Amino acid sequence: MTDVLSRRDLDFLLYEWLDVESLTARKRFAEHSKDTFDAVLDLCADIAHKHFEPHNKLSDSVEPKMRPDGTVEMIDEVKAALDIYAAAGLIAGQFDESLGGMQLPTTVARGAMAWFQAANASTSAYPFLTMANANLIATYGTSTQIDDYVRPMLEGRYFGTMCLSEPQAGSSLADITTRAVNRGDGSYRISGTKMWISAGDHELTENIVHLVLAKVAGGGAGVKGISLFIVPKVLPDGIRNDVTLVGLNHKMGNRGTTNTLLEFGDGTHSVAGESGAVGYLVGEEHRGLSYMFHMMNEARIGVGFLAISLGYVGYMKSLEYAKVRTQGRPLGAKDPSSPPVALIEHADVRRMLLAQKSYVEGALALGLYCSRLVDEQDTTEDDRLRADTTLLLDLLTPIAKSWPSQWCLEANNLAIQVHGGYGYTRDYDVEQYYRDNRLNPIHEGTHGIQGLDLLGRKVTMHGGAALELLGSRIADTVQRALELGSDAAQYSVQLETSWSDVLAVTATLWSTGEPDVALANSSVYLEAMGHIVIAWMWLEQLTAVHGKSGHFYDGKRQAARYFFVYELPKVAPQLDLLSSLDRTTLDMDPAWF
Amino acid sequence: MTDVLSRRDLDFLLYEWLDVESLTARKRFAEHSKDTFDAVLDLCADIAHKHFEPHNKLSDSVEPKMRPDGTVEMIDEVKAALDIYAAAGLIAGQFDESLGGMQLPTTVARGAMAWFQAANASTSAYPFLTMANANLIATYGTSTQIDDYVRPMLEGRYFGTMCLSEPQAGSSLADITTRAVNRGDGSYRISGTKMWISAGDHELTENIVHLVLAKVAGGGAGVKGISLFIVPKVLPDGIRNDVTLVGLNHKMGNRGTTNTLLEFGDGTHSVAGESGAVGYLVGEEHRGLSYMFHMMNEARIGVGFLAISLGYVGYMKSLEYAKVRTQGRPLGAKDPSSPPVALIEHADVRRMLLAQKSYVEGALALGLYCSRLVDEQDTTEDDRLRADTTLLLDLLTPIAKSWPSQWCLEANNLAIQVHGGYGYTRDYDVEQYYRDNRLNPIHEGTHGIQGLDLLGRKVTMHGGAALELLGSRIADTVQRALELGSDAAQYSVQLETSWSDVLAVTATLWSTGEPDVALANSSVYLEAMGHIVIAWMWLEQLTAVHGKSGHFYDGKRQAARYFFVYELPKVAPQLDLLSSLDRTTLDMDPAWF
Repeated sequence: MTDVLSRRDLDFLLYEWLDVESLTARKRFAEHSKDTFDAVLDLCADIAHKHFEPHNKLSDSVEPKMRPDGTVEMIDEVKAALDIYAAAGLIAGQFDESLGGMQLPTTVARGAMAWFQAANASTSAYPFLTMANANLIATYGTSTQIDDYVRPMLEGRYFGTMCLSEPQAGSSLADITTRAVNRGDGSYRISGTKMWISAGDHELTENIVHLVLAKVAGGGAGVKGISLFIVPKVLPDGIRNDVTLVGLNHKMGNRGTTNTLLEFGDGTHSVAGESGAVGYLVGEEHRGLSYMFHMMNEARIGVGFLAISLGYVGYMKSLEYAKVRTQGRPLGAKDPSSPPVALIEHADVRRMLLAQKSYVEGALALGLYCSRLVDEQDTTEDDRLRADTTLLLDLLTPIAKSWPSQWCLEANNLAIQVHGGYGYTRDYDVEQYYRDNRLNPIHEGTHGIQGLDLLGRKVTMHGGAALELLGSRIADTVQRALELGSDAAQYSVQLETSWSDVLAVTATLWSTGEPDVALANSSVYLEAMGHIVIAWMWLEQLTAVHGKSGHFYDGKRQAARYFFVYELPKVAPQLDLLSSLDRTTLDMDPAWF
Repeated sequence: MTDVLSRRDLDFLLYEWLDVESLTARKRFAEHSKDTFDAVLDLCADIAHKHFEPHNKLSDSVEPKMRPDGTVEMIDEVKAALDIYAAAGLIAGQFDESLGGMQLPTTVARGAMAWFQAANASTSAYPFLTMANANLIATYGTSTQIDDYVRPMLEGRYFGTMCLSEPQAGSSLADITTRAVNRGDGSYRISGTKMWISAGDHELTENIVHLVLAKVAGGGAGVKGISLFIVPKVLPDGIRNDVTLVGLNHKMGNRGTTNTLLEFGDGTHSVAGESGAVGYLVGEEHRGLSYMFHMMNEARIGVGFLAISLGYVGYMKSLEYAKVRTQGRPLGAKDPSSPPVALIEHADVRRMLLAQKSYVEGALALGLYCSRLVDEQDTTEDDRLRADTTLLLDLLTPIAKSWPSQWCLEANNLAIQVHGGYGYTRDYDVEQYYRDNRLNPIHEGTHGIQGLDLLGRKVTMHGGAALELLGSRIADTVQRALELGSDAAQYSVQLETSWSDVLAVTATLWSTGEPDVALANSSVYLEAMGHIVIAWMWLEQLTAVHGKSGHFYDGKRQAARYFFVYELPKVAPQLDLLSSLDRTTLDMDPAWF
């Protein structure tokens, strides 16, 4: 069976490029060594292969359904796999030892998680959400909340969710109408409807910990009035809370993850005869959104990893197919009775494979780079470095979420194409990856929202300090690459030009003083900046392979070449469009459609 | 319920642009008038709306299955719809009156067919294949074959298929192994396995007429030895022929169309105790591929229309959604308690709608333009014009197939994105269009095959005469548009530049004398040429709306602007890549992956 990821590539990125081993010098990771990192990666690859991948297709074809009694039925393999996952201590992987965790660096933990995301996107969503939820409560919750919710989540006895969206308010959190009333006894009563809640109900664990955004009185209009609550499905005293599954959403892909419409406080499971589900405030009132964004930023990079993992497994499988499937002859072959050659012998197939390779390996590099920033931010004792790292991470987050969501989906598109008709059938795996991956440009902030975040907030924050910081990191790479001469030097010049162009475009856009003009093409800006950042990641990889020989390194060189020859040039017309302050979309009267 | 196509747009393209009414001056169409064309379009829109669209989702969720007895079970709605379609005389729409047909121009017939393709891609595939099959036999078959097969197909009593691919030979027809042996009594015996046969089995009609490529002895190696046979499921004397359904392919989309693995002559239904299915030669031995290409070229434009129709219906539905769904506020709005606005008020949503509009209306223009060429070719009495028209049609066919397959699929991607999370659910329609449309870059010649056909054959044939012809047509449009001044003049210059660039690139590629270098990026060439041709279609439309006022015409102007501002500039880096004779994919050693 084909591996779902390349361990060789992961080792390269972690050890040869990001020098993750050096993190063991940090106090938090002092108990670790390359051996313990390797052991975790081995373990994850093994569990993913044995327990997650085998039911990936089944959980797609036999999706969860709601029973008449309101509970959720799903295939047994999901719980079996997740119990093994939890028993291996993996939910607690990154958490403090005091909470029973392994204190793994984020960089290693993300690489480890990617095996599960590649093997089975749907099943991996349950622990993914649980970890993000537990991390939020561990950071902002009380010690009682940590004992009551974080510990059982880390043991895999409870799973967690994040409840933001409502049917009438998807991307627009200002419009949520879920209400919370303080009962004065340390609890609140929550009433409202939440939509698109992944893992919102199931029978996988004894309890489900919902983190719910709701408004308490006096909080002001819009997002300012939002507070955050823990709303467990089952209360600490064992009583069922008034959280009701109204329905499951039936999706194109990611079918194995229940996605739910939940009613909080509709009276179905009324607690003590009062209205509202029982909830417990996290931190302070009216600061809910800032806590949630702590989780959201982590989740956004996680969504990037999900997209990367799905892109990667599609690449691995189409590569394998292209090696074994024979079809046609080389262009110059005159003899029709000569034996057919492997698909990979055709230049156009190699183009589709190289494109996939450049997308998935470039995106994985970015995901791990961002994770390495998280580790830096969490463990450095240098305040200035910490602040800079946070700034850079803030800037890169919308890109680390959106770029893989777009281009690793395109990788899946190419993986289908390499398979020809077979790729369009459910007998092969790639069509599912394509369907699963289509979710990623939508959830945790749509593509458009990421564009507004990047251009409308991140590049301008602190007087453009984040952009300047990114520029200096890129300049550093360019400098190192220039010294290598040859292709690397040429690509350096290309990247340097693109970077100065995008800086000029940014200045032009904001010189207008008109946000609607500046932001009219923020999605285009996001895409251009994404390509530039991935080009930087490829230049980084090129410097890391310098002087090394062998097929693996040659492959890296060729994928870098592909990206600089085929991909980075796509940015030029995008930047031209942006710098022209084009008003096509603004001038379009809705009546003209 | 939202319309699946825009009748206003179709009327514009047919009457205001292509002047289809003028075809009524041709002898073949003399009985027709704008009224009869309109009546056909009205009828098709009505039947599509009432009988095709309502079961589109059902035939996706309850796909055909093979019963233990080898027959196919499918929902009743498919046969009910197709019986109404056939009873309305629509299968015979384009055929001669002597065969019971309406002698409709291809241009009108394609526009009419698009209603069914948009309403229900899967159900429309049965008559689509039947018409192509009947047209081939009507052209190359004997009068007996026409009586035995064409007439019952036009009446809807038989349906047809085209059986080219085999499990080991998808794109590579030279490798087919199905054999035919001449029995000397006017029949042949056919033995072999055919894969990916759409509509290959069902209980919709009393008979199925397979057109099968097979090799007879003495035909030489490769494609030269291929002959074409009619192999009916039921023989003229009512005896079941030895054609056996082995299995149904289960696909990501297009699920309502049975796609089959068929055995010819495996003995399951042995005829008269002899081995092989009974088949009848079409035309002459060894010329099968040229006959099949007659059907293939027609089918390729038809696949383009399928992609267009799916793109179009997705556009219509996401447009409607964007008008009624409220979400968020304008960028400048300070008051969070102000009411949310319709999605269409957001610039990024308008960008996604304009992109869809420019793709689907641009592609529809190209599809109808090609159909108009078919009508010209079929009815002109000017030999020179006929030859030129054929040449131009040959050149445009790979583009008319591949461009919509790529960009109207992208339109569906954007239609999902406009819907947000709802678009990813099966409660809405757009996810199905996206799945259905993903077939189109694969069947009837993959994207890669179209690229090789365009760059490797079409642009060089007859010393580049086709390319020259296209250039003169584009120059003519440019000239007319230049005279209009304003935007049209500016776009004209843009198009003229792109055209001279692509000509230069073509010369550079072929100056190498090395086909593998010239063709290494034939897919990129196909995509660049596609964008240039669609830009031409938009310039054509712009000239056709000149001087006209109203929302509809303003929308056309704005979509043209979108295409020239956002899309055509994408061609420049593609042409740069091609002119550099880049060897990245050629130099990639498979071992490096």
